[in-house]
Amino acid sequence: MTGARRLSVRSQVDPFIVMDVMEAARQSEAAGKSVIHMEVGQPGTPAPAAARTALAQAMETGALGYTVALGLPALRARIARLYRDWYGVDLDPGRVVVTAGSSAAFLLAFTALFDAGDRVGLGLPGYPSYRQILRALSLEAVGIETRAEDRFQPVAGTLPDLAGLIVASPANPTGTMLDRGALTTLIDGCHAQGTAFISDEIYHGVQYGDRAVSALEVSDDVYVINSFSKYFSMTGWRIGWMVVPEDHVRTVERLAQNMFICAPHASQVAALAALDAEEELQANLSVYAENRRILLEGLPAAGFDRIAPPDGAFYIYADVSDLTQDSRAFAAEVLERAGVAVTPGLDFDPGRGAGTLRFSYAGSTADMVEGVERLRRFMAAR
Amino acid sequence: MTGARRLSVRSQVDPFIVMDVMEAARQSEAAGKSVIHMEVGQPGTPAPAAARTALAQAMETGALGYTVALGLPALRARIARLYRDWYGVDLDPGRVVVTAGSSAAFLLAFTALFDAGDRVGLGLPGYPSYRQILRALSLEAVGIETRAEDRFQPVAGTLPDLAGLIVASPANPTGTMLDRGALTTLIDGCHAQGTAFISDEIYHGVQYGDRAVSALEVSDDVYVINSFSKYFSMTGWRIGWMVVPEDHVRTVERLAQNMFICAPHASQVAALAALDAEEELQANLSVYAENRRILLEGLPAAGFDRIAPPDGAFYIYADVSDLTQDSRAFAAEVLERAGVAVTPGLDFDPGRGAGTLRFSYAGSTADMVEGVERLRRFMAAR
Repeated sequence: MTGARRLSVRSQVDPFIVMDVMEAARQSEAAGKSVIHMEVGQPGTPAPAAARTALAQAMETGALGYTVALGLPALRARIARLYRDWYGVDLDPGRVVVTAGSSAAFLLAFTALFDAGDRVGLGLPGYPSYRQILRALSLEAVGIETRAEDRFQPVAGTLPDLAGLIVASPANPTGTMLDRGALTTLIDGCHAQGTAFISDEIYHGVQYGDRAVSALEVSDDVYVINSFSKYFSMTGWRIGWMVVPEDHVRTVERLAQNMFICAPHASQVAALAALDAEEELQANLSVYAENRRILLEGLPAAGFDRIAPPDGAFYIYADVSDLTQDSRAFAAEVLERAGVAVTPGLDFDPGRGAGTLRFSYAGSTADMVEGVERLRRFMAAR
Repeated sequence: MTGARRLSVRSQVDPFIVMDVMEAARQSEAAGKSVIHMEVGQPGTPAPAAARTALAQAMETGALGYTVALGLPALRARIARLYRDWYGVDLDPGRVVVTAGSSAAFLLAFTALFDAGDRVGLGLPGYPSYRQILRALSLEAVGIETRAEDRFQPVAGTLPDLAGLIVASPANPTGTMLDRGALTTLIDGCHAQGTAFISDEIYHGVQYGDRAVSALEVSDDVYVINSFSKYFSMTGWRIGWMVVPEDHVRTVERLAQNMFICAPHASQVAALAALDAEEELQANLSVYAENRRILLEGLPAAGFDRIAPPDGAFYIYADVSDLTQDSRAFAAEVLERAGVAVTPGLDFDPGRGAGTLRFSYAGSTADMVEGVERLRRFMAAR
């Protein structure tokens, strides 16, 4: 009777350490204490009003059954137009694959490109799910330790032999971006050694100086993954997209038909309307910009002064190795004594993350003001 | 520059032949011809009114951000109650995993249970995506040809050595069910040879005589997969669930966190309300029952008289090997000359499907009446 209970080797992925922080924060709040949440990686704002209105109307008029696997044609066309509007790139809508969030896009990209045992590179620190999804798909995640002087991004010419490389700009947890020159060099370097290039552009639009450069501005021989979760404030809707080389579309379509059938129809309807909600989305962005200003002023003043240049996203990644070599315990102390939940760097960088913290400023401005003040008092009393 | 264009071996899954039928039907309609759709595997009805109302309200009051990976606690609890109501099974809500449709549940189950190269069995004819998802995950799909006298279901004692077996009851495309005795023998047989048992129960509730038996009535050492797509009429919402053994929950949770983050929040809200929309759902079922009656009378009268016992689901699977050995060409002929779109069996059974057709009766009763009459005239003129 034990046969059915066998678990695979590839299923044994690492737990998220931030989950322990979130659970501790929940318990703290349940005990009546106040907690400022700087651990969450999602906007507190809902989907744009126009998106919700569009869906409310669609629910009254249509059955919202399966869509075709690649997504509603109107949504694919509208996403293609975004590349013209944002990047000046003329994109064939036929290359746009609507997905159930960037999560589904990663599953599609990795299965389309890689066979079991293939080695896929990613920068450390980086989004932890890259590593775990790769493992679940029997692929080998190759962590590449990046350096502050390279904006915590991989550098061409220093890469090992890889079937593929995943790069995020703006990055999580650092918020750093690659400029056009660095991105071009990296893509060219990958192509020269036969390495597929996957560009995670989920934080595009959430930027504070220069705009983020899309890999599609550099090459058509790339997979570009994006999502409505961050700039469009639609995390829980699980809707995103991927742009693939033209001659990969049929393969990705067949995979999508079988692995997902389609992205949620309701979310596709909402997303199409969200693409035109520029005013509301820019207002959200203004809040992040103000929050970022508060943290960039307050964190160094409090003593967190070794931070990556936060070009985009809504994170600040701080080197606290002069304060601790156990970021997990340190984050627990910050929660307990300061009432601020922050993320230890270990999820993003299993080695060096013992000396780093991630602060998210996706919350409200009032919370950021209060959070910075609490951190200042905590550090002063230390 | 060609390195980035490499496609994996595992991505080369089979195309759906039914897609050609659907495209031909679309072209036929675009040319002004009338087509009765007996090829589609989804209800024409929308989500229950209560589900849509609940979501409309939730959109006004909450941000609908990420939920926890295993799903909204209220939804997990309500799904557990369904097992008491439908099957008399006392189920711990902690074992319920809310998923983005049964598609996501298969991806989770297969990665949790199997490593690359493992052999996983499935009955032929059967749902084609089982085979393709297994291939995409570097697993070996082992097709087991089933027999009409076994209700087209696998039989214990005749199975090869397998890491897992997937069984659907009611089945697609046959609509046949396993009774409690046959299901018990099959599960016991699997456990005796160390084979994990995955029960696809997506058509439960869509039944016309005896109720379907859940694998959870027989054993806790099984994976049970279900969905809101069929009985609950929510295909496009991509929402379903899986019940796993208690000691697999943590592993599946970690996989779900990384591979999906969560199922669509909006769909979870709608699904929770759908579980109480019994009256509307039973009305839908009455339509299927009447449609089934019409086809069970009309198809044999038209000449399609070798059909599997359609215990549940909304399909009738017909052996037409006396009429053709090329079901694809035959389906094209039926579309062209009768104006009825049907599915050739090749998607479900790559070998013997050359001599079978699947008729879906998920459409309207008026369409079923007209479709049967068209098929009668077509066969009479042949």
